[in-house]
Amino acid sequence: MEELRERTLASSTVFEGRIIKVKVDRVALPDGRESDREVVLHGGAAAVVALDDDRRVFVVEQYRYAAGETILEIPAGKLDPGESPLACAERELEEEAGVRARSWLPLGAFLTSPGFSNEVVHIFLATGLERAAGCRPPDDDESLTVRRIPLQSLKRMVASGLVRDAKTATGILLAADAMETGKRGAPV
Amino acid sequence: MEELRERTLASSTVFEGRIIKVKVDRVALPDGRESDREVVLHGGAAAVVALDDDRRVFVVEQYRYAAGETILEIPAGKLDPGESPLACAERELEEEAGVRARSWLPLGAFLTSPGFSNEVVHIFLATGLERAAGCRPPDDDESLTVRRIPLQSLKRMVASGLVRDAKTATGILLAADAMETGKRGAPV
Repeated sequence: MEELRERTLASSTVFEGRIIKVKVDRVALPDGRESDREVVLHGGAAAVVALDDDRRVFVVEQYRYAAGETILEIPAGKLDPGESPLACAERELEEEAGVRARSWLPLGAFLTSPGFSNEVVHIFLATGLERAAGCRPPDDDESLTVRRIPLQSLKRMVASGLVRDAKTATGILLAADAMETGKRGAPV
Repeated sequence: MEELRERTLASSTVFEGRIIKVKVDRVALPDGRESDREVVLHGGAAAVVALDDDRRVFVVEQYRYAAGETILEIPAGKLDPGESPLACAERELEEEAGVRARSWLPLGAFLTSPGFSNEVVHIFLATGLERAAGCRPPDDDESLTVRRIPLQSLKRMVASGLVRDAKTATGILLAADAMETGKRGAPV
């Protein structure tokens, strides 16, 4: 597919924030014509389907200002600079749900909005849960409520529209498949 | 969850493009403190799992400049102003895959990146496919290759990391579930 690549002719940063950077690039299309591409640069994120011994999943209810609604999500957060997706997932699980996991299985890494962003979210299945000793506080500007919901109920909530978050939907469906096909996490 | 909402104190548009608009808002958190929120406004999108009578799905291979890679996606595109998600899905299916569908089933509407964007992607299952008479050309700046891949193979490709696009992963997993549980589209 190399022939369909687009070549950067010029690049201009139009916004540099705390979470995203936005640039507009002039590109040469494969057929030689030119176009502009708006790009939101994001450092990536990690998300965790943390499954307890009763097959319940830790989810957080959180108001999302950008979306303008309170939604149900699996614990997730941005990668710190240089941080591995797994280390980020472990940190967010502890910060948001107050638990640690003995076994981790990568479920996949997905581009959330490839039409305009490079954001990749890495999703993990975590099992063998135990309450974290000294529970770390959540981020300064996060307000969230933690719940535990059976995996099968969450799967139905994805299909019925009650789960609105894409990474949560993907993670739940992949985790349900992994459990059905007998895949398990391994200590890492 | 009303008590966890964040109140807008000030809003400033930092970028207005063809596809996205970016603003930075000053907000009051539920506990009274203040924070900044970076928000990417997007008009929403629709995506289609178009399943033929042999349970193969139309997918497009497309270079995505923002992501920097060629990826496999179900046909999808931005909603035109005032356009319904279903009308957009019908249009994109015809433009990108050259087919029309007799039956449509909504599979869900998902926030792609609720941490910083309001983008919602509406996903449909389309069946009863027929080749469109006068095939509409794709968008001016799109270069894509159309393929048909069995639904079950695509499901494995999601689990094994070959499907990198989040909406495609969610759509494929939901469509596979819908077929397994006997849900079918209805003419709309």
